[in-house]
Amino acid sequence: MSPIITLTTDFGLADEYVGVMKGIILGRAPQAKLVDICHKIKAQDIEQAAFVLQAAAPYFPPDTIHLVVVDPGVGTNRRLLALRAGGQYFVAPDNGVLTHFLTDDFFEEAVYLDCPRLYLTPLSNTFHGRDIMAPVAAALANNISFQDLGNNVIKEQLTKFILPELQIDAIHGNISGVVIQIDHFGNLTTNIHQRDIERLSLNPAEIEIVIKQKKISGLTSTYGTDTTGKLQGLIGSRGFLEIAVTGGSAAELLKTQNHDPVKVLAKKNP
Amino acid sequence: MSPIITLTTDFGLADEYVGVMKGIILGRAPQAKLVDICHKIKAQDIEQAAFVLQAAAPYFPPDTIHLVVVDPGVGTNRRLLALRAGGQYFVAPDNGVLTHFLTDDFFEEAVYLDCPRLYLTPLSNTFHGRDIMAPVAAALANNISFQDLGNNVIKEQLTKFILPELQIDAIHGNISGVVIQIDHFGNLTTNIHQRDIERLSLNPAEIEIVIKQKKISGLTSTYGTDTTGKLQGLIGSRGFLEIAVTGGSAAELLKTQNHDPVKVLAKKNP
Amino acid sequence: MSPIITLTTDFGLADEYVGVMKGIILGRAPQAKLVDICHKIKAQDIEQAAFVLQAAAPYFPPDTIHLVVVDPGVGTNRRLLALRAGGQYFVAPDNGVLTHFLTDDFFEEAVYLDCPRLYLTPLSNTFHGRDIMAPVAAALANNISFQDLGNNVIKEQLTKFILPELQIDAIHGNISGVVIQIDHFGNLTTNIHQRDIERLSLNPAEIEIVIKQKKISGLTSTYGTDTTGKLQGLIGSRGFLEIAVTGGSAAELLKTQNHDPVKVLAKKNP
Repeated sequence: MSPIITLTTDFGLADEYVGVMKGIILGRAPQAKLVDICHKIKAQDIEQAAFVLQAAAPYFPPDTIHLVVVDPGVGTNRRLLALRAGGQYFVAPDNGVLTHFLTDDFFEEAVYLDCPRLYLTPLSNTFHGRDIMAPVAAALANNISFQDLGNNVIKEQLTKFILPELQIDAIHGNISGVVIQIDHFGNLTTNIHQRDIERLSLNPAEIEIVIKQKKISGLTSTYGTDTTGKLQGLIGSRGFLEIAVTGGSAAELLKTQNHDPVKVLAKKNP
Repeated sequence: MSPIITLTTDFGLADEYVGVMKGIILGRAPQAKLVDICHKIKAQDIEQAAFVLQAAAPYFPPDTIHLVVVDPGVGTNRRLLALRAGGQYFVAPDNGVLTHFLTDDFFEEAVYLDCPRLYLTPLSNTFHGRDIMAPVAAALANNISFQDLGNNVIKEQLTKFILPELQIDAIHGNISGVVIQIDHFGNLTTNIHQRDIERLSLNPAEIEIVIKQKKISGLTSTYGTDTTGKLQGLIGSRGFLEIAVTGGSAAELLKTQNHDPVKVLAKKNP
Repeated sequence: MSPIITLTTDFGLADEYVGVMKGIILGRAPQAKLVDICHKIKAQDIEQAAFVLQAAAPYFPPDTIHLVVVDPGVGTNRRLLALRAGGQYFVAPDNGVLTHFLTDDFFEEAVYLDCPRLYLTPLSNTFHGRDIMAPVAAALANNISFQDLGNNVIKEQLTKFILPELQIDAIHGNISGVVIQIDHFGNLTTNIHQRDIERLSLNPAEIEIVIKQKKISGLTSTYGTDTTGKLQGLIGSRGFLEIAVTGGSAAELLKTQNHDPVKVLAKKNP
């Protein structure tokens, strides 16, 4: 069996940094299959990396090893960790990038990395993706056990960022959320899940979405179904409410940023 | 033998979408070799995707599986298809993106996809690349037969877009074509093939190319042969007439767009 | 053993060019593992490609084959070459892109390519990466010997560009260098190596760096250690002095270009 190692970084594609990590991995675990998830995470944007990773990981087979190098604290006293969660492995800085996997549902086991015999020498202060994390990912591909990687740490000790929370008004049937990700097409993913809408027994045809003072009436089933240029709401492939524009970019039209508020309301009877 | 699966999409590289499709494929066909052809197709530009695909496919070995997800109609009633053409496989929406392979020269067999047992559940309305096409590409890598994928469909039923046609004036030795692709270097590929110029017995040294009111005299043999900054015409690596600027971008210099007209004339004797 | 073939080009990612080379390679050497080092080398920037390659190659295992297609002279009388250096293989135009490996330390053997039976037919004038270099890289993956690729050539005959040299004033303890690479984060890599600073017995805490009329006092150990927005100097992961801005882009702040001068001085006692 060829183990899969995925890579998610904020390195961009203009430098040799990603290639170098792959060289290290294939030198130590030539049987590994490498898959790029995303290297265009905004520089040092831990939250975006966390979102992209949680959206991607469920589609990979069990025992996939996810290497995540978005590491603004490289060389400082932040810790590095290996995590087993949801039947997969993660190697990343302990800076919140694994937040979504530190729940009872997913978490299985974690260690703070402490296995200098695996590290590159000399060890730099500025590129632990290359010097520490890539070697550890390769070691996992070679079936090293967690106790050989470092010291066990409990879930509660690990760094999480606070996920933006929904405000749900069950009486009036209102949900207040935010935009959490803007994709390449300019579609806005919100943190309002299909389940949240269903739980309030809101009928998709009878809701109203409000974003940036614009109102959108009802949900469409997919992108291409509405008049070109028109704002629409739909449940996207990530399972969340998305705001889109047929044949255009909702992000451009609405000049939206992450964390902009989005509201779902029961349509008022006229 | 490791089957090769190529990927061509308009997803860009800023999201997890491409990685997710690779996760699905490797989970089901771990022996597959994945090759990215292009993920920077302009959003929903079926014509560009079709061009890039027909330019790339001939350089891949027999039985390569090409997965093409440029799918503005996702979730609507457009069909999806698997095609065998030119000794290779294609999985794509039936929206014209396979136009170049639907000729007598290439076409072998096609089915409309109808194999729900292969699809992801729940099936989304917005990402059939992940939920349907990636699983089908993986199934082809595992040697599934076409009859297990869906119902046979004849070539004439499949969607094609109309390729821009050349106007050839054999008497005066003129060819009128258009720009069909602008590459990363700003080189303009036209739809005038080397063969079209040869058929008119035009001597490469004695032709004139007209584009955007500029005249180019004769063909050079390659990019670096002319004075820096000078417009030149040459037969590019795709076999078509290209307009280029030594050390610069013809697209910028001429402010060209796809479908801009290009003319090849026999040079007038003075 | 699967041989590794890396790819470094100035092709960008908007066309099928990189994918096409991979198709050729996998058709001939299906066992090869392909790794992208960088395809966003500035168009025809031989110096940048050379830098990226020398920074990446040491992290790949012995016998890795590096394919480098930054080839402004394609189709002219420039030669192509296969090089063995530092225990690895290189296939590239003889245009200086391998400069860093043409030293006594690295150089082992080189041939000018002359093996038309391996080339694609018809041979284009404009894409030797596809028609010649990819096939030669595949042949190396299949263990072809150098004498079957072409004619031996001595190191002194090969094209090198002149690397910017340091000016070192050992008496006053000053080093004058230049910026040689600006990365995705806007960090400036200089040609002043950690060793150069150590050789002058300069104490990292007691040096001053001057760039664009700005003075930076002392070296920090890593990126994230200083006040946000502050210029800092540090030894980067490539072993060279880097100028960075905590949480920002030094390139933007200083409006720097490659070859801009950088000076390291012993701090004056007050």
